[in-house]
Amino acid sequence: MSSIDKITPRSEDYATWYQDVIRQADLAEPAEVVKGCMVIKPHGYAIWERIQAQLDRRFKETGHKNAYFPLFIPESFLKREAQHVEGFSPELAVVTIGGGKQLEEAYVVRPTSETIIGHFFSKWIASWRDLPLLINQWANVVRWELRTRMFLRTSEFLWQEGHTAHASHDDAIAEVRRMLEVYAEFAEGWMAMPVIRGRKTESEKFAGAVTSYCIEAMMQNGYALQAGTSHDLGQNFGKAFDVKFQNQEKQLEYVWQTSWGVSTRLIGGLIMTHSDDDGLVLPPRLAPIHVAVVPIYKQEAERQSVYEKADAIAADLRARGLSVEVDKREEYKPGFKYFHWEKRGVPVRIELGPRDLAQGTAMIKRRDRKEKQTVPFAELATALPALMETIQSELFAAARQRLEANTISVESFEEFRALMEPITAERGGGKFVLAPWCGERACEDRIKETKATIRCVPVEPRGGAGRCLVCGKPSPEPVIVAKAY
Amino acid sequence: MSSIDKITPRSEDYATWYQDVIRQADLAEPAEVVKGCMVIKPHGYAIWERIQAQLDRRFKETGHKNAYFPLFIPESFLKREAQHVEGFSPELAVVTIGGGKQLEEAYVVRPTSETIIGHFFSKWIASWRDLPLLINQWANVVRWELRTRMFLRTSEFLWQEGHTAHASHDDAIAEVRRMLEVYAEFAEGWMAMPVIRGRKTESEKFAGAVTSYCIEAMMQNGYALQAGTSHDLGQNFGKAFDVKFQNQEKQLEYVWQTSWGVSTRLIGGLIMTHSDDDGLVLPPRLAPIHVAVVPIYKQEAERQSVYEKADAIAADLRARGLSVEVDKREEYKPGFKYFHWEKRGVPVRIELGPRDLAQGTAMIKRRDRKEKQTVPFAELATALPALMETIQSELFAAARQRLEANTISVESFEEFRALMEPITAERGGGKFVLAPWCGERACEDRIKETKATIRCVPVEPRGGAGRCLVCGKPSPEPVIVAKAY
Repeated sequence: MSSIDKITPRSEDYATWYQDVIRQADLAEPAEVVKGCMVIKPHGYAIWERIQAQLDRRFKETGHKNAYFPLFIPESFLKREAQHVEGFSPELAVVTIGGGKQLEEAYVVRPTSETIIGHFFSKWIASWRDLPLLINQWANVVRWELRTRMFLRTSEFLWQEGHTAHASHDDAIAEVRRMLEVYAEFAEGWMAMPVIRGRKTESEKFAGAVTSYCIEAMMQNGYALQAGTSHDLGQNFGKAFDVKFQNQEKQLEYVWQTSWGVSTRLIGGLIMTHSDDDGLVLPPRLAPIHVAVVPIYKQEAERQSVYEKADAIAADLRARGLSVEVDKREEYKPGFKYFHWEKRGVPVRIELGPRDLAQGTAMIKRRDRKEKQTVPFAELATALPALMETIQSELFAAARQRLEANTISVESFEEFRALMEPITAERGGGKFVLAPWCGERACEDRIKETKATIRCVPVEPRGGAGRCLVCGKPSPEPVIVAKAY
Repeated sequence: MSSIDKITPRSEDYATWYQDVIRQADLAEPAEVVKGCMVIKPHGYAIWERIQAQLDRRFKETGHKNAYFPLFIPESFLKREAQHVEGFSPELAVVTIGGGKQLEEAYVVRPTSETIIGHFFSKWIASWRDLPLLINQWANVVRWELRTRMFLRTSEFLWQEGHTAHASHDDAIAEVRRMLEVYAEFAEGWMAMPVIRGRKTESEKFAGAVTSYCIEAMMQNGYALQAGTSHDLGQNFGKAFDVKFQNQEKQLEYVWQTSWGVSTRLIGGLIMTHSDDDGLVLPPRLAPIHVAVVPIYKQEAERQSVYEKADAIAADLRARGLSVEVDKREEYKPGFKYFHWEKRGVPVRIELGPRDLAQGTAMIKRRDRKEKQTVPFAELATALPALMETIQSELFAAARQRLEANTISVESFEEFRALMEPITAERGGGKFVLAPWCGERACEDRIKETKATIRCVPVEPRGGAGRCLVCGKPSPEPVIVAKAY
């Protein structure tokens, strides 16, 4: 099962490096028998559980309740919102046979649930007393993809989708921004992944939204990753599904809706923010295992005393809230075990042998640094929780430094185009280009010819008015342009 | 949204009572636009989350890890195990179109995942070192159903499915029994639902299993509910998917597998074990809300002091681990609120008005009893957690008493047949019949003519040898026969 394979260096082939890290960390594997799908293996799923726990707590603290809606959606439902069906039709998986019979109306496997939830909102909402209605769903969704990449883009993926209904557009907009901030705070505080909060352009927004907000992160190669979205749906789905409420003046109005989601794609972002040529690096707050203790011994007598101390250290650390694995597998040598936990991204390894026992110290190795340090046994229980916080904040600082260093303003379209040329070792990685844009579709299309897209109009402006990168017309504020996953 | 409807009494129409309880408790509703599916509403989903949390903890404590496998399964996979395809074919939903194109090989939406997981086990398992492999998946599954009943039988449902591989049949059997016991302990200790642990007959076992074990619970009307199953799959799927390992003697062997699952059906069992003609009754350990505080006031000045005290009580109780809701909705009167929380099964209601404040006591009403009691404020924080334990154990005791009282031995087939006649008010509810059975299919078929089935051969024998209920041949031990959901 375990094969000691090499991880391709990032400088050699970033895409292969990414696959290698996932395989070596045993996070997931392609489900080659089911087109575009993947299997999320235990170590990968354990990261997802930690992401879920954090987000779910935040959703509940902001008043949302979880519910569950059908996997299948009548095909006709999608057609009720014109933009929506246009956006999702090419990506649908369709069930045409049920219980051995051809179905009268086919069902699509949900690509997202605005339509089916809109249908139920119309049954549940009658009065302003029923608003706001704040629902979240944890679910699997399917979007048929031709070019897939584990975690980042798969035909089936796991996600959460928030769906809310409000009595006014202002309330809906406040919700959209509140959840965008929940995502941003989680990404930065827990994933140690800095993000730019922004607004999508018309051509990049969600199919059916009035306005889409997003958080965009920079991967190590300078590519952008859309890590979460929060949509102001206006009354589009309210009208399509006849979701009306009687307001306090006893008039009927369509509700104002929002939807927002993040997915297992976040794990891809996590990998490409922190990992290195030795494999996975995880921020401690999302690491399923914080500390791996590797016992070292030659003789049976040593083994017993080393195991006892290892168990005692583990118990101490667990009492401080850390998740600890003592690797007692007899069939493997210490060197193999170091490598095993290293490539799985465990933040700290403790090496413990007879000499350490004699000295009363343990050898500590951080996953994210090269050097080792010795820590007296008595200090481990306070030093290690503190070290986790240090690692967490240093990973974030390094990622933020990279984002800032690689976000650059340009003066001309030629300069921009040069930056979007394929990445080479000499040129360094890709960049986030900060440039004014006039807002016209024609200029956006010119930008797209470079394979880059306008990732967002930052919510907190990153510069003042200027002249459009493409046409030179006066432009209110700069946008972020980058190649993206 | 809230309508004060009547709940049909159980004595009048048990099936309608069940639907009424679900609707009035706002647990779920039929998704009439998606055949046989349901929407699990927030209050119902909150119960499922509590079930999940408890089971997930037990799965992890027994060494299992969560993972996620594809929703879709190539149609050919199901055909590899002869019994399996025969059992599931009539119930399949089939995806024939993906991304706008007819698929070369259709995918079925998983009805259960033995086949797709078997495929991956064959890739992951090579040596005895890889065993046991202990995996669990939380997922949605689809089985096309013609006659559906919310929670008990729906075309899509949520569940967990454990899938494990072992180096010996003994190890697999130990796992099957271990997980059966985890289910039984959870059902009895947390759902307050007594169960009979047993083994299914050949005709009732899982399609593909060597032996299926189950826990069977008795609903209030005497019907049986199969609440969980744990299957010894032998080497059936190992052979179908070529899952081999090298044993310590360096010989290749097929692995021995198990699978086990419980689903949202448990919520149906919970409802039909404890609820009454006033609606839902929940055992405190699974209740999303333990205490509802209803403030009573006439004037504005009263309102403020009552609210303050209600908030203080809620804070005290929350500090003791209880989930408390203070119902401050201004648009509803206290009587409406009593009814609101009662039909939602909240175990305890606190009524709090100016007179209570003057006396320094609160009025307490248990959901499962008619009478009220007054409790001094100073005692609430200790009395209420204790009361929750009392309610929990009294609900279990009542359910166990009902199970014992309605499990009866019969002397003749005629006596048995009379007991399986449709339930009437005069005759009382259905029964679990304890009767010897010779083990022959012909006799089992005669039993099935009454619409009852052999639910299981109890694991702990409930009586000695006797003569077969049908043919009179000597029989080793009695089986449980009942009508079932």
